[in-house]
Amino acid sequence: MARKIDVTELILRDAHQSLMATRMALEDMIPACEDLNKAGFWSVECWGGATFDSCIRFLNEDPWERLRTFRKLMPNTRLQMLLRGQNLLGYRHYEDTVVDRFVEKAAFNGMDVFRVFDALNDIRNLRRAIKAVKRSGKHAQGTICYTISPLHTVSGYVELAEQLMELGCDSICIKDMAALLKPQPAYDIVREIKEACGEETRVHVHVHATTGVTMVSLMKAIEAGADCVDTAISALSLGPGHNPTESLVEMLEGTGYCTDLQMPLLLKLKEYFAKIRPRYQEFLSGITGVETEIFESQIPGGMISNMESQLKQQGAADRLKEVLAEVPRVRKDAGFPPLVTPSSQIVGTQAVFNVMMGRYKVLTGEFADLMLGYYGATLGPRDQHVVDLAARQTGKAPINVRPADLLKPEWEELRSAALALKGCDGSDEDVLTYAMFPQVAPKFFASRHEGPKNVGKDPQAQPKAAAAAAPGSAAPAGGRDPVRTPVSYEIKLNGRSHRVTVAPAD
Amino acid sequence: MARKIDVTELILRDAHQSLMATRMALEDMIPACEDLNKAGFWSVECWGGATFDSCIRFLNEDPWERLRTFRKLMPNTRLQMLLRGQNLLGYRHYEDTVVDRFVEKAAFNGMDVFRVFDALNDIRNLRRAIKAVKRSGKHAQGTICYTISPLHTVSGYVELAEQLMELGCDSICIKDMAALLKPQPAYDIVREIKEACGEETRVHVHVHATTGVTMVSLMKAIEAGADCVDTAISALSLGPGHNPTESLVEMLEGTGYCTDLQMPLLLKLKEYFAKIRPRYQEFLSGITGVETEIFESQIPGGMISNMESQLKQQGAADRLKEVLAEVPRVRKDAGFPPLVTPSSQIVGTQAVFNVMMGRYKVLTGEFADLMLGYYGATLGPRDQHVVDLAARQTGKAPINVRPADLLKPEWEELRSAALALKGCDGSDEDVLTYAMFPQVAPKFFASRHEGPKNVGKDPQAQPKAAAAAAPGSAAPAGGRDPVRTPVSYEIKLNGRSHRVTVAPAD
Repeated sequence: MARKIDVTELILRDAHQSLMATRMALEDMIPACEDLNKAGFWSVECWGGATFDSCIRFLNEDPWERLRTFRKLMPNTRLQMLLRGQNLLGYRHYEDTVVDRFVEKAAFNGMDVFRVFDALNDIRNLRRAIKAVKRSGKHAQGTICYTISPLHTVSGYVELAEQLMELGCDSICIKDMAALLKPQPAYDIVREIKEACGEETRVHVHVHATTGVTMVSLMKAIEAGADCVDTAISALSLGPGHNPTESLVEMLEGTGYCTDLQMPLLLKLKEYFAKIRPRYQEFLSGITGVETEIFESQIPGGMISNMESQLKQQGAADRLKEVLAEVPRVRKDAGFPPLVTPSSQIVGTQAVFNVMMGRYKVLTGEFADLMLGYYGATLGPRDQHVVDLAARQTGKAPINVRPADLLKPEWEELRSAALALKGCDGSDEDVLTYAMFPQVAPKFFASRHEGPKNVGKDPQAQPKAAAAAAPGSAAPAGGRDPVRTPVSYEIKLNGRSHRVTVAPAD
Repeated sequence: MARKIDVTELILRDAHQSLMATRMALEDMIPACEDLNKAGFWSVECWGGATFDSCIRFLNEDPWERLRTFRKLMPNTRLQMLLRGQNLLGYRHYEDTVVDRFVEKAAFNGMDVFRVFDALNDIRNLRRAIKAVKRSGKHAQGTICYTISPLHTVSGYVELAEQLMELGCDSICIKDMAALLKPQPAYDIVREIKEACGEETRVHVHVHATTGVTMVSLMKAIEAGADCVDTAISALSLGPGHNPTESLVEMLEGTGYCTDLQMPLLLKLKEYFAKIRPRYQEFLSGITGVETEIFESQIPGGMISNMESQLKQQGAADRLKEVLAEVPRVRKDAGFPPLVTPSSQIVGTQAVFNVMMGRYKVLTGEFADLMLGYYGATLGPRDQHVVDLAARQTGKAPINVRPADLLKPEWEELRSAALALKGCDGSDEDVLTYAMFPQVAPKFFASRHEGPKNVGKDPQAQPKAAAAAAPGSAAPAGGRDPVRTPVSYEIKLNGRSHRVTVAPAD
């Protein structure tokens, strides 16, 4: 008897986030829901920070309504979301009762599985959210952000897994957002987690495809005992996205493993999304091949193309290589954080600043906070000289406590501010939307009554496509706003204005 | 100590054949040769039927001169070619002395490794070529075309390997031209060949990437003991092409295996070919994603897109699905041949004819020959009813002997015919060029003095690209002549003219 491998389908969240700037409209997802519901997935990932953001920023869609729609249309499949621990779906730390309320409301509206991560792997930033999930009776998945550094070791990851299980997690996820997880460490980490935490411990593995090695990593993880792996229907796979679901099923044939997935439904879904994809032509990632350079730079593919596009806008496209070389240095100075939202933006933007204006001549507020401990603890020590610079520039003292411990109760304040906005319906959901994206929510509340705006276009109506980019050229499709993030800066130095934006990668 | 895995680099032959209709000009290869020579490859595949054909048909390049240039520029790397056994680089069986002379001349001009295959895996069609390679003191690689059918088994492939080794082959190649080789059979076949023929038997594995599973198959083949695997520099990889060379190197890190490849040179080569690729935009395959449907249809990706384009030209694009469904039936009736040049064209074209004109109402000459044994023996029995039809239509009798046994000495005749052509230089090489492609050689000899014609274009000068095709849509880039083959037919039936061309897949 072959051992059954569970599968999480990513097409409604990470796949279109990674491949088409998170722009897919609910309208284009709805026709697929019946087949997704029946295909046999352990869960369908369908919600997260970037999709929430994109809903209110670009699509005039209520993200809570999207969730409720999924719940209605996929009654037999677990709905899964990605939650940034104490940052929830935003970019700052929230006070504990906001965390509680967010989780409660997400559960109430239909969420089943909460994949909870912290960009620094600081478990103190996960604890409250995990407790809230457990209290809601839902599945709490404790997440380890995988990265490579001189300090990151298999045993370090295993310790983290043990701590997460002690918090009461229902499963562990190894989350490899930049396709850095090679086959051997995939095997070793899964095996040693199983040995340390017990063979019955559920281990999920999330990898991207960008480096071309991770399909093999999934195989090795499965051989080591992984219970569930993440893939995406092939029509929205590969490049900075994920490995194809259909290929996973075929790959396992004849091995000691199998899935429960219904291939005819997968092929039907493929055909459907292959028709949807060209509607988002102008948002498509220019990366279609593999990028093994990421093993050196650690920079997720989406981040590179965004940096490139932003450097171009400043007439500094020729400095991309310097920026790519600067990122690992900044990361080292910051104590080797994994590069995932928001640390990827924070480190990436500081690298751009270092190249454009001189090393650490100007620190972004976020980078200063990172150096001072306001995002939590990093695995490695942070460079003392840069910490001092950060303290001097911001007038803040370095901290060692859990960042959220410094926050005062804020729910009532958030609630009053939200209720004062035109179009806010007074629900906790609206307050949370405002709390997550205070700059974007007001415009969304005001325009919500106009209904969703699908930014997909018939292929005939597309702006002229640039010649298809070569794999490896990392050209953002059409060079047009593939913005996936609200983290942007306008800086003046020596009379010259610099504007920098960096893309999320979770 | 990690076991060293050898690598054959495909970028100068199969990679551009699979991804850009074999159009890459020698001029665009030359700047890469120094790095290819130094990167540490066991061999560089650089010659074969389609490249030879493309040279004289599209590029006004002398293929023998191309070979001599490679020899000069890559003195430290084995040069490797793909040879269609008794078919050499053509589409018919040649008399034995022509085979001898071709191999002798290829060796003389610089070829080191001859990968010899027969589309039907009929070992009688390999024997003479393998003997000729051995007599030239070169490396004879006996090749097994991998396919799936109710009759093809691991032990059948192992028997074939044993027979090839008995012929004196220096190595065995498992050649998976349609990305059908899944991880478990990859492991089983390699392991059992090693056990049957001895652990010291060199086993090479060639796979395409189209189905998204074969990087894992390479890993499993390596674990089973494979000595050498085939990959392509990432800038020309994936889709109907191959797995990326850089990813292979990274994939092995930390495992018990390693390569000798120089990563900085691989990345330099990647950058170079990423710049070359857009010059061939109009020839690029429209398939960029994965196609697991191939496991059902058995039809290589390049063949599907070509069929689609040809059906469109006949106003019958809506009948592609019928054709795809017909191919496995025709293949069964023909005794389950692997689908590789020329059997892929023969079966594919007959399937088109069956759909357009009624099943077996018209047989192509080649399909009739296949049914009557004129291409050799198939593993399965051929359908007697269709064999009878073939005999009736052609007036030929079925045969059981080796097809080339029926041929009379033909060298002198070929030589006289070639020498009569304007521009033929009288060399054996020119006679062989004529012998391979008698329809194309005359024009080439006449225009050779004009020098090579690079059909690549600056991206600015490209014809407007269609919106990038979605993976799975199988649209040939621009819908423009991606012809890879001289096998085409003009048929009139009920007053309507049908023209059909099908692409090679070796």
